[in-house]
Amino acid sequence: MLRHAVVRFPAAFKRINVIRGGCVAQCSPCRSLEIHRHSHARVMTSAAAALSSSFQDKRDTGNTRAVVLLALSLIAGVGGIRTASPAQTEAGATDAGVKEIEYTKADVQAHKTIETGVWVTYKDGVYDITKFAENHPGGNKILMAAGGAVEPYWNLYAVHKDPEVQETIKEILGELRIGTLKHSPEDEKEVDLDDPYAHEPERHPAFKINTLKPFNAEPPGALLVDSFVTPNALFFKRNHLPVPDVKEEDYLLEVAVEGGKSFKLSLEDLKRDFPHHTVTATMQCAGNRRTLIHEVKHVKGLSWTGFAISNAEWTGVKLRDVLLWAGVPEEYERLGLAHVHFIGLDKDISNQTYEASIPINKAVDPRGDVLLAFAMNGEPIPRDHGYPVRAVVPGIVGARNVKWVGKVVASKSESQGFWQQRDYKNFSPSTDWDNVDFDSAPAIQDMPIQSAIATVEGGLEGEEEGGPLTIKGYAYSGGGRGVARVDVSIDGGKTWEPATIKEGGWKHGDYSRSWTWALWEHFVPEEKLEGLTEADICVKATDTSYNVQPESIEAYWNLRGVLANCWARQKVALRKVAA
Amino acid sequence: MLRHAVVRFPAAFKRINVIRGGCVAQCSPCRSLEIHRHSHARVMTSAAAALSSSFQDKRDTGNTRAVVLLALSLIAGVGGIRTASPAQTEAGATDAGVKEIEYTKADVQAHKTIETGVWVTYKDGVYDITKFAENHPGGNKILMAAGGAVEPYWNLYAVHKDPEVQETIKEILGELRIGTLKHSPEDEKEVDLDDPYAHEPERHPAFKINTLKPFNAEPPGALLVDSFVTPNALFFKRNHLPVPDVKEEDYLLEVAVEGGKSFKLSLEDLKRDFPHHTVTATMQCAGNRRTLIHEVKHVKGLSWTGFAISNAEWTGVKLRDVLLWAGVPEEYERLGLAHVHFIGLDKDISNQTYEASIPINKAVDPRGDVLLAFAMNGEPIPRDHGYPVRAVVPGIVGARNVKWVGKVVASKSESQGFWQQRDYKNFSPSTDWDNVDFDSAPAIQDMPIQSAIATVEGGLEGEEEGGPLTIKGYAYSGGGRGVARVDVSIDGGKTWEPATIKEGGWKHGDYSRSWTWALWEHFVPEEKLEGLTEADICVKATDTSYNVQPESIEAYWNLRGVLANCWARQKVALRKVAA
Repeated sequence: MLRHAVVRFPAAFKRINVIRGGCVAQCSPCRSLEIHRHSHARVMTSAAAALSSSFQDKRDTGNTRAVVLLALSLIAGVGGIRTASPAQTEAGATDAGVKEIEYTKADVQAHKTIETGVWVTYKDGVYDITKFAENHPGGNKILMAAGGAVEPYWNLYAVHKDPEVQETIKEILGELRIGTLKHSPEDEKEVDLDDPYAHEPERHPAFKINTLKPFNAEPPGALLVDSFVTPNALFFKRNHLPVPDVKEEDYLLEVAVEGGKSFKLSLEDLKRDFPHHTVTATMQCAGNRRTLIHEVKHVKGLSWTGFAISNAEWTGVKLRDVLLWAGVPEEYERLGLAHVHFIGLDKDISNQTYEASIPINKAVDPRGDVLLAFAMNGEPIPRDHGYPVRAVVPGIVGARNVKWVGKVVASKSESQGFWQQRDYKNFSPSTDWDNVDFDSAPAIQDMPIQSAIATVEGGLEGEEEGGPLTIKGYAYSGGGRGVARVDVSIDGGKTWEPATIKEGGWKHGDYSRSWTWALWEHFVPEEKLEGLTEADICVKATDTSYNVQPESIEAYWNLRGVLANCWARQKVALRKVAA
Repeated sequence: MLRHAVVRFPAAFKRINVIRGGCVAQCSPCRSLEIHRHSHARVMTSAAAALSSSFQDKRDTGNTRAVVLLALSLIAGVGGIRTASPAQTEAGATDAGVKEIEYTKADVQAHKTIETGVWVTYKDGVYDITKFAENHPGGNKILMAAGGAVEPYWNLYAVHKDPEVQETIKEILGELRIGTLKHSPEDEKEVDLDDPYAHEPERHPAFKINTLKPFNAEPPGALLVDSFVTPNALFFKRNHLPVPDVKEEDYLLEVAVEGGKSFKLSLEDLKRDFPHHTVTATMQCAGNRRTLIHEVKHVKGLSWTGFAISNAEWTGVKLRDVLLWAGVPEEYERLGLAHVHFIGLDKDISNQTYEASIPINKAVDPRGDVLLAFAMNGEPIPRDHGYPVRAVVPGIVGARNVKWVGKVVASKSESQGFWQQRDYKNFSPSTDWDNVDFDSAPAIQDMPIQSAIATVEGGLEGEEEGGPLTIKGYAYSGGGRGVARVDVSIDGGKTWEPATIKEGGWKHGDYSRSWTWALWEHFVPEEKLEGLTEADICVKATDTSYNVQPESIEAYWNLRGVLANCWARQKVALRKVAA
């Protein structure tokens, strides 16, 4: 068979347009003896390369769209040169009328690396983007889509939805189409109606999945630190039980005061009767970075690498307003009230629901900003994140931000639920399952200062050029404490420089209401790398209470593997730079 | 000359009563060729020794008085046996009518160690307590009085004021009297009337003085951790300027609201017009433990070893009540108010006063517990601590707990004073005086988790017996975060055990209103010391937000040397125990 599409490059591009064929060896999953000829168009011009490089250096997110457009235009050769039209590429046949090769999902999934070739699907088309990936204006993040559909990734970045960009993208894809996606019986989901997880929502393919049932997954760090507000589709997922299938029309929130009355509110009541507030707040799982604790001595718990944290704009009503309306006095102490419980609608097989509580001070404080939220980044809260209503408790560990809240209780005592009393606590390194006294430790509420490295770019071994290093990541502290500073070392902690806080972080005068993470970036100029073969990168953040991260994890090992907040470290081999 | 007093020991004590003489070599400061004969009565019986040892082991503070009485009785041989009467010892002459030797203060000061002999004065008497010191029921704390007056130490411990104990003490002293204190012209204070420090209050001799003018001093750790509430006389002192001499009748507190009215309140107004509240709160200097930072690279600042921290019961009126009365609304944001300034009455030579501010949220929060305090441990606040009124801001660094408050202002902006803007901030280790940007860092308000070792007793090299180790100290965290746990290691941090929190520390359900330190104690049984020649003691505390102390200080060095909160460490040589 022949390449399916007529590729028309402008004259200037032709000399670098290499058509390669004979990939039988590479395409083992195709299990066909036919020789496929894929498009491996090297379309980088020096202009586009310079542009791409300037895009990297400027790190100008505000101007992304213009740069993307220009880069895409250059790559696609827009400017009077005709390329394959969308009609040609989406119709399942070339303009020469040749029927396309059909590929299964498995075929596509087998093409995830530069070595095997990078394939993606868009609608029913299969595309070989191996060479285009190098020139993607958004960098190599496109490789995350390798072996699957590109739509979920485009959904993450508004730029792809721009009609002009869409047009250009389709033009480029036209050049790279290699076949049609074949619907195979194996693609059909087998639904076991007895499985409590039979009705889980769809999830973004980028997630690194920790467990499927319940679904627990973190996004790739590179995507996470790309935006201050995490897109809903990428927000880390921590489910303790199957996702309940709640219908808005059936939903009733019970609000009760111990020793007082109990009320039921529909979602409409909640939205109509209380003022709406929007709070940007970061949520983190207590087990974030647990992989470090596993390395010392294995513990029970999900192996979060460092991205079980995300940031969103939550909209809802203030829990304070609902509680005062329900009869909780500002001076709640006189009724002996001390905690507020959230009971979820998610149930285990014995019908036990998830539940947790927070100190009532946090709930009633007019500046505590606790929400019963119904929207996340301007959309109804997705099912995985608590549709239709979840508790959003800024500054407090994810486990108390109860999803699918069915009941709120102002109580004299702390929740006696498993996750409040027998989990999410931290102990001395000498405490293990044979001698643990769970009652001796406080339930985790707010959290210590934390940071992680998400990406290290430039100057690395294996790269064609040396150049400076750019290190990016996040930092976060609980309890409303802002991130005051992030220090970065490239010599294993001997010397430190403060990183640049790009967004979030400490605001003058605010010591108690910093609910978000800070995204930081650190630039190491080439001259500082001279003579080095390795950078031993260390990162430590400091919050506004000047709490710090400890150097290593050993002395903070704990049997539940929670609150791993030692320095973030990564060793990278550097490309040797000519003196 | 002869020994001054007739010592009558019960028969059973006589065989261990050793009278030693000929101390010319030891008594060099006496500059006399006469041979003095001092009483070195070895008065320990096996019963008293057993009692003393049981006192140590039980660590029973509640029963101290009874034990002291019994021990003193045994030592003094009370039980029908006549000893020297107070009349004999206080009259300056023996019952034989012999005139006593006269000693100067300098003579007494030269006897501070077991080697030179331990002398103390009581009223006009001079006493050699070298041997008694071993048997002192309160342990070797009595040695702190060596070379000076004992009265200030008795004042610290109520037991010494018990009439029965007083009687016994005087009887014992009668036995140990060696002379009379001679009033010498050098003892007279020279008062330079031009010296702004001419009218400073008297201070307890136990203090380790950092600077005299202004007076900055910390108490010995052993005395400090002896009581949960620090006696006024021992509370650490951190003065930035001379202590003002404020008369109650002249005192007026100005209360102003930016853009609003201003009021003046006398101390009587304050006490009469607002409800009184008592709050137990720990105060800590930001520079506590700065000696550790000096060790890495010297910084400006007082060399606090680890005891620039104390705990008291403060009584006063709530700042919240005064502010609301003065017109600050609960929703202070609508007037743009954001900070509350405290302006002291202490002035430098250019008439600049000390001042600082706190976030208004802390001041107005009904659970923030900020006081305008007029009493400390039930007494009017001593001059050194802010007489007649000081700000007490629980959970916040000492520097904002402004003493001698003359003015309180609810303001839109932070204090622009030196100590708010150009001091008491923390920076990256790469920041030094040539590149510091003070505006880039938040002013220290609350403080990170902290701990220190105060005493290590038992089993040490040089001691007659092996035995277990008992380690004592404190832990503290700012911002209302309680001390959740203290871990102790004796192997340099390889293994850890949780210490016993004796008082203070985390209370179930309280995450935001823990204002005090925790006193802890850790007991290492003898069998755990077997084969060890050294204990490398490490201590790290954890607060209710699970903030931790970092291992070492190097990576946290900062040019102002503040907030040194790495692990507390002490290496001790152990006495070899026979296998």
